[in-house]
Amino acid sequence: MNNTISLIDAFKQAKYPLPGHGKRNVQVLKTAFEQVDGEMESDMYGAGEVIEGYQHKMAKLLGKESAVFFPSGTMAQQIALRIWSDVKGNKKVAYHPTCHLEIHEKDGLKELHHLEPILLADESRPVLLKDLEGLQEEAACVLLELPQREIGGQLPAFEELEAMSAFCRERGIKLHLDGARLFEVLPYYGKSAEEVCALFDSVYISVYKGIGGIAGAVLAGDRDFTEQSKVWKRRHGGDLISLYPYIVAADYYMERRLPLMEKYYHEAKELAVLYNGCELLRTVPAVPVSNMFHVHSERSKEQLEQIFAGVTLETGVGFTQSVREKKDGGAYFEISLGDRYGEAPRPIVAEAFRLLDQRLKAAEAV
Amino acid sequence: MNNTISLIDAFKQAKYPLPGHGKRNVQVLKTAFEQVDGEMESDMYGAGEVIEGYQHKMAKLLGKESAVFFPSGTMAQQIALRIWSDVKGNKKVAYHPTCHLEIHEKDGLKELHHLEPILLADESRPVLLKDLEGLQEEAACVLLELPQREIGGQLPAFEELEAMSAFCRERGIKLHLDGARLFEVLPYYGKSAEEVCALFDSVYISVYKGIGGIAGAVLAGDRDFTEQSKVWKRRHGGDLISLYPYIVAADYYMERRLPLMEKYYHEAKELAVLYNGCELLRTVPAVPVSNMFHVHSERSKEQLEQIFAGVTLETGVGFTQSVREKKDGGAYFEISLGDRYGEAPRPIVAEAFRLLDQRLKAAEAV
Repeated sequence: MNNTISLIDAFKQAKYPLPGHGKRNVQVLKTAFEQVDGEMESDMYGAGEVIEGYQHKMAKLLGKESAVFFPSGTMAQQIALRIWSDVKGNKKVAYHPTCHLEIHEKDGLKELHHLEPILLADESRPVLLKDLEGLQEEAACVLLELPQREIGGQLPAFEELEAMSAFCRERGIKLHLDGARLFEVLPYYGKSAEEVCALFDSVYISVYKGIGGIAGAVLAGDRDFTEQSKVWKRRHGGDLISLYPYIVAADYYMERRLPLMEKYYHEAKELAVLYNGCELLRTVPAVPVSNMFHVHSERSKEQLEQIFAGVTLETGVGFTQSVREKKDGGAYFEISLGDRYGEAPRPIVAEAFRLLDQRLKAAEAV
Repeated sequence: MNNTISLIDAFKQAKYPLPGHGKRNVQVLKTAFEQVDGEMESDMYGAGEVIEGYQHKMAKLLGKESAVFFPSGTMAQQIALRIWSDVKGNKKVAYHPTCHLEIHEKDGLKELHHLEPILLADESRPVLLKDLEGLQEEAACVLLELPQREIGGQLPAFEELEAMSAFCRERGIKLHLDGARLFEVLPYYGKSAEEVCALFDSVYISVYKGIGGIAGAVLAGDRDFTEQSKVWKRRHGGDLISLYPYIVAADYYMERRLPLMEKYYHEAKELAVLYNGCELLRTVPAVPVSNMFHVHSERSKEQLEQIFAGVTLETGVGFTQSVREKKDGGAYFEISLGDRYGEAPRPIVAEAFRLLDQRLKAAEAV
């Protein structure tokens, strides 16, 4: 890569970046606050119209008795599992091996809450009923992530979800939803948020994935559960004097983007077809079930970076800003569809993929 | 109080509110962001110019090797004590009975970190060298809060601080500064932040007390310490994808208000003279050593609320928006000086205090 541009720099210069909503810059905040009256009062340690009103709205949308705004999903989900563990008097909680709590949180669940995860299923697929049936020990709580982000955003069938929910209810196992991307899967399921959440005892959603806010999360459940979650939120240091910068942005972008989730989903399927049209690339899942998917290749990370950077420079089409190595050889990257894909002219995109396919095949021959 | 206005409503209507910087409303954010370029990139999970630049600036200001921005002081301080406890292999930490960690955090320190506090001194005074000398068991860490907020913002003499620091260093006890209001005490000490922080192994400062930002905190120390604090920040759920709404505001208001701390301190002394001029009120400390003090009275909470509301309505001078009961009878409230006091015309303020003194004496006679 001597004297050539890095992939991230090529992507940043791309006239037509395909994934995402846009740059994560201060304009995201400025736009959300443009029409907000400066006299609007801040929330104060969880109280006040700006936070209570939003929490009420989210409880209603998710079909739960109550909801609490959190600065992060990391905090919200550890707390959910801790509450269910205390309720059941059992430190075991079960989730997928790629669960956010297992791989992205420096073991906060274990170090702060001393919970003991049981890993369900494997990296080839999401958790299914057979995994719950196969549990060798009792768990206080099962966490299901919809879609399972780290394996490309795979989903169980809705009937499978219903069966897992019934299984847990019969056995008194609490069921928690990692719905970081819940709204993104609703078009595929053809269900409302409320219908999906009804299968779970507690629900977390993120406000900065498909919604595209600045940061923050919502945790919902019955009032007992959310009241306990507020105590833990204080203990974690998450009961900030003011969370309104995140709440106002969450509300603003949610209003605009929830109606677009269907569009992002269809565009993800369209874009996946383009990737799968390249002989040396394939998407996981083969047909997306949300606005996201992964792109895998047997080519190396370095080869892919160089080829993507080159095609981006030539065509103006931005594919991805990073590529990750796979443990077992080859490389992959993640795609999430947002506002930007719809703005890229289709003929230019098609030409970029034609060139990409050609370059990948040429690289192989080396 | 039938058919009369509540104290908080009277205060909100006051033309001349004496304490604080101003309303905690959305304008605080809008003003801070007015001149910020929308193209400025967000921080991403602790990386990026906006967070790294601010952390670097704060490390320099506090005279420490490194600094980390946290969403809250609750999170930052639990983490500081946890790190020192792990370093020393000792769960005991020592602090004042009114320490924030002891009374405002729902026992997060105990519930999440299983640390065991030793309480030093009592509610009549701050921690002194004799308290450390009298420790009956070994502590991993001593936390000193400057000023001790819940007892009116009292301070040990600087020589006493130096002696406590030397005592801890000799014995290998880590010394942590709860400097939520550190900048507010510098005029009294006649020292720089760096000179005070040099006495401590780790330092926390708040960006929304005297500085008047939106929320957030800074934790500083040597690089080993701050690197460990970042791991715990992730575990606590405080490593948000974007903290810039708080950082930009912190930086904006710090630039404007650090030079005003001396003014707030002198005004606090001036205002304390007015309170102490009322026969039935007295300030703690008698002469403030920062921008804050408490006002105590033998009159009841209800009497005080009614009298303050009445005088505020008549004169337009806002004294306080709340009064708290004292355990042993009587009542008190807290005053923090900020931008507003300087804007109130002195003759109107003097007249309001004359009336207040009169009403308090009349109430006594009832």
